[in-house]
Amino acid sequence: MRFDVTILGSSSATPIYNRNPTAQALNINERFYLIDCGEGTQQQMLRFDIKSSRIDYIFISHLHGDHYLGLVGLLSSLHLNGRKKPITLFGPAHLKEIIDIQFLYSETTLHFDLVFVAINPLQSEVILDNQDVIVETIVLDHRIACTGFLFRQKKRLRKINKEKVEELGVPVEYYSALKRGVDYFAVNGTVHPNSELTNSPDEPMAYAYCSDTLYNESYFEKIAKVDLLYHEATFAHDMLERANTTHHTTAWQAGEVARITGAKKLIIGHFSARYKTLNELLDEARSVFPNTELAIEGKTFVIGT
Amino acid sequence: MRFDVTILGSSSATPIYNRNPTAQALNINERFYLIDCGEGTQQQMLRFDIKSSRIDYIFISHLHGDHYLGLVGLLSSLHLNGRKKPITLFGPAHLKEIIDIQFLYSETTLHFDLVFVAINPLQSEVILDNQDVIVETIVLDHRIACTGFLFRQKKRLRKINKEKVEELGVPVEYYSALKRGVDYFAVNGTVHPNSELTNSPDEPMAYAYCSDTLYNESYFEKIAKVDLLYHEATFAHDMLERANTTHHTTAWQAGEVARITGAKKLIIGHFSARYKTLNELLDEARSVFPNTELAIEGKTFVIGT
Repeated sequence: MRFDVTILGSSSATPIYNRNPTAQALNINERFYLIDCGEGTQQQMLRFDIKSSRIDYIFISHLHGDHYLGLVGLLSSLHLNGRKKPITLFGPAHLKEIIDIQFLYSETTLHFDLVFVAINPLQSEVILDNQDVIVETIVLDHRIACTGFLFRQKKRLRKINKEKVEELGVPVEYYSALKRGVDYFAVNGTVHPNSELTNSPDEPMAYAYCSDTLYNESYFEKIAKVDLLYHEATFAHDMLERANTTHHTTAWQAGEVARITGAKKLIIGHFSARYKTLNELLDEARSVFPNTELAIEGKTFVIGT
Repeated sequence: MRFDVTILGSSSATPIYNRNPTAQALNINERFYLIDCGEGTQQQMLRFDIKSSRIDYIFISHLHGDHYLGLVGLLSSLHLNGRKKPITLFGPAHLKEIIDIQFLYSETTLHFDLVFVAINPLQSEVILDNQDVIVETIVLDHRIACTGFLFRQKKRLRKINKEKVEELGVPVEYYSALKRGVDYFAVNGTVHPNSELTNSPDEPMAYAYCSDTLYNESYFEKIAKVDLLYHEATFAHDMLERANTTHHTTAWQAGEVARITGAKKLIIGHFSARYKTLNELLDEARSVFPNTELAIEGKTFVIGT
């Protein structure tokens, strides 16, 4: 099952020429889960060939413009392109007002259902549980209410050993039971233990998205041992005071978060416009947590690799 | 005096990869007048090196997202980049609400004055009159209230003939009067007619911006004989029915508007996403009005040439 994330934007509040505000497209089993939607996200999706028609869920972390200003444009384009399938949108309660007032004055009535789910900013909650994934909020520490998102794959079914079942002539109707771990009783009375006919499923993977936030241990437990951690790293550590004032994290601190919470891999992003190149931030995070990568726009990270 | 317009976006409602929603930067005497501000306008300004710090006025034609969704992001970036100078924003009355609610929930208090002027959508009015230009609204015919903008340069002062005034030893203190057309009385009593010492100023030029609109003769008089006409041309003429339903113009009709109103030159833009290349639209408009150009993003048109 696909479980990967493509970076659509990596800048913080003010974009620079080659960096767009925050957005990520998470592909889970060929459906897109869009995380944040900064201005220009629909253009970035065109650029990197992410089909917006395949977005089923959108998650908005908070109401600073660099995390949501592309949303009304994206929804409008989906509408104009004939979308009929619903979209579920998770975000701060006031986001609904912001969207409604703009569609009101543009006299737009969407042709699809926009199911809005207001996020409780005060405590972590499961906000989505479907066949592929469970999504929980992460309470972050920013200047305004802000939540991250933890995507944890569902435990998968066992995988059928095709060679073995064909050798034994197991009827296709039994496959579903085999995948659930049931033993196979052959017509001659022989019992074949499930473990002979199936292999263990892939371990469920977890992806945590943490932006924007002050370094704060309060959310560490929630993101413990994820396979991939995206954490903002707006500044280098020599700007710690500025990071504290603006409720952001330094690259060194992002490395610390990954190290302390036992992440397998770290991506840093949400870079301040002051950094024209990003080596300094990458080196700094790697000095604490070597398995760190930069959130390069257009790059896809397979979660668990 | 500079009087030119740079195209920042040329797509209609849904952007395509290489075309952004509508925005134009009009440079009048080294100050920028931004006309419409579709999503991604601030990124386009970075791309084409249009200094957003030099924007003094912003004009929003109507409240369809492809004409204003970049505005809150642009204002936020100006704020974060330390702007102190006021900006005057002209637009539909409800635009103020849309901006206010977003700054309210992001807890943003701009460090500069945003002077909002609500446009009367029902009749043409002078909305700005400064040392360089007079701006009037053009009442267009769209699905929701929409106004175009007519920028007419102020009549300039006469130009001093440097050689002649130096030859006669005219004191510098007289220059300002000479520019206003006053004759020169030399100390020996001789009267030098102003026409001997100065040359006629450049003729004031006019630029009309018409987007979005149905072809409708009601606005033709207002834009008569402009030096440069920008007119939307969302569709080719074989899509006339669709143009009528959606209150847009075809390329053939845009050519007709330029021909009938006596424009000197026409730029067409606001192209539907269905046109991957634009030759068809250009050829069609030129078949009626030969001096037509496409609104190519990044291209600057000097008004009056």
